[in-house]
Amino acid sequence: MKTRVVALAKRPVGMPTAADFAVSEVELPDPGDGEVLVENLCMSVDPYMRGRMVDRKSYVGPFEVGEALTGGAIGRVVKSNVAELPEGEHVESHLGWREAFVSSARGLRPLGNLEAPASAYLGVLGMPGMTAYVGLLDVGQLKDGETVFVSGAAGAVGSAVGQIARIRGCRTIGSAGSADKVRHLIDDLGFDHAFDYHDGHLERQIAEGAPDGIDVYFDNVGGEHLQAALNCMRPAGRIPLCGAISQYNATAPVPGPNNLAIAIGMGLTLKGFIVSNFNHLREDFVRDMTAWVNSGELKYRETTFDGIEHASEAFIGLFTGANTGKMIVNLA
Amino acid sequence: MKTRVVALAKRPVGMPTAADFAVSEVELPDPGDGEVLVENLCMSVDPYMRGRMVDRKSYVGPFEVGEALTGGAIGRVVKSNVAELPEGEHVESHLGWREAFVSSARGLRPLGNLEAPASAYLGVLGMPGMTAYVGLLDVGQLKDGETVFVSGAAGAVGSAVGQIARIRGCRTIGSAGSADKVRHLIDDLGFDHAFDYHDGHLERQIAEGAPDGIDVYFDNVGGEHLQAALNCMRPAGRIPLCGAISQYNATAPVPGPNNLAIAIGMGLTLKGFIVSNFNHLREDFVRDMTAWVNSGELKYRETTFDGIEHASEAFIGLFTGANTGKMIVNLA
Repeated sequence: MKTRVVALAKRPVGMPTAADFAVSEVELPDPGDGEVLVENLCMSVDPYMRGRMVDRKSYVGPFEVGEALTGGAIGRVVKSNVAELPEGEHVESHLGWREAFVSSARGLRPLGNLEAPASAYLGVLGMPGMTAYVGLLDVGQLKDGETVFVSGAAGAVGSAVGQIARIRGCRTIGSAGSADKVRHLIDDLGFDHAFDYHDGHLERQIAEGAPDGIDVYFDNVGGEHLQAALNCMRPAGRIPLCGAISQYNATAPVPGPNNLAIAIGMGLTLKGFIVSNFNHLREDFVRDMTAWVNSGELKYRETTFDGIEHASEAFIGLFTGANTGKMIVNLA
Repeated sequence: MKTRVVALAKRPVGMPTAADFAVSEVELPDPGDGEVLVENLCMSVDPYMRGRMVDRKSYVGPFEVGEALTGGAIGRVVKSNVAELPEGEHVESHLGWREAFVSSARGLRPLGNLEAPASAYLGVLGMPGMTAYVGLLDVGQLKDGETVFVSGAAGAVGSAVGQIARIRGCRTIGSAGSADKVRHLIDDLGFDHAFDYHDGHLERQIAEGAPDGIDVYFDNVGGEHLQAALNCMRPAGRIPLCGAISQYNATAPVPGPNNLAIAIGMGLTLKGFIVSNFNHLREDFVRDMTAWVNSGELKYRETTFDGIEHASEAFIGLFTGANTGKMIVNLA
């Protein structure tokens, strides 16, 4: 059987381009003993993948040039030599940018009866949703009724952060990259205040939505957003550091916030985290998030590209603001 | 009775100079009902006071131009109309830069029988010692056997941090501003590794002392030290943000660390604090620190200027590295 994969053709410098990726056809063997053949229904592109395209030490190793990119995908077992993974079972995998694959059961998570479309398991019910959940509630130690600011609020993580905060009775402020997204945050997702960061004056915009200051700033963006938020924090405020998308394509080190010393007098906590260290909260996440999604309290949106040949375009779109909600590549 | 006080003559711009301060003689009234007359034995100058010389909102209001500077002092009651503060009692006050004062009992802390020279209550047994204690053990969540790096390690706070870490079985690395101080850290205070930050290559110097990385970086300095330390942190490391003395005399905002995003992948916590929010740990601090000082496990040194007319010189000396250990102005 032939299938297509996307490999890293070369390491991007600055903003990635189509030439940094290469689609190729590969031959898949039949699944052997203890193996399954999975056809992917959809795959994920996520901002964190940009970091793995750089050759440096980090919490996971870098992608290798010439090899298929890895990442989250949802597929269906079409041939099985594994009793626990019968044909027809839906599985989450981390083998990434490929239409189909043969694998042992290791690293495959069976999803059982789907409670939502398969793609939701790459978004609100998957890694980005859990990132929002653990980042806000555990890392950010959110208390009911506090005031929360989240940057990248129309993205997969940010849109969940704002809605979880709202469900917890918090005042929610979000920044996004277009007037349409700002409307979406307020009209569809129930944010109390939202603004387009292209309008500048970040600190004034935050203060308009949070005149008494912020208790939790959920940082997806870094850079000017972090500096502005620091000036708006209330005493003992918390800043979960989740991402720094404003810097992922920088070709030289970007200076940090020039007001970090505010954290001393105000007793602020900045805490970086990656969701894979919070698996002990997975059951809580699945229970709460499934309930919120099923009740309609928490909404999600997706931006979809069709076909693996458009995966690189979808990925690049993460950095140009092409997505509202989760960016999905449909492979079905 | 006449006494001398030091007032802020004008707000310093950049490095403070003698002209920013003014010594003047004032008349003290007799203590009234519920009041005491206290003669100070010694007063404290501390780096944090530089921040209060700027007219801006912070956790405490700014000093007022033309008014006597406030801060810690140890004195003796010489006339008393307060039963709980008899003549001869030693008290800690926060009225600051003055040889004597009349006050109600409010804000005065009786010291009882002194267990050490009076000046120690401005240093190792006082605010700087407690800053080290709560910052390392509570904010920094130090665990026995970890590796600790502290900047400004020959200062009042830093020298206590390093020794508490050593007592807790930790590997200790310190930076200081001269070869003499580096020798003091290693020979007298038992640091495992120390270096003069003027030699540059901060990251390499830290890594030499901590080849497997740092669990806790106690930051008294900010700036380049913080940036270098971030590159040396171990996963789940903690960075108590205690001070940023490298920036206190800056006349324009100083860029923050350009590698803050490391905190995300490594799961680092940066936590600012001020000691006054940790009064619930005072009893623990007094018990442990008194025991360590009395047993000789924890040593302290002081740099002393004699006479209130030298208080501004002592204060300025904090920023030129004139002190080893606590800077004290002797008024007795």
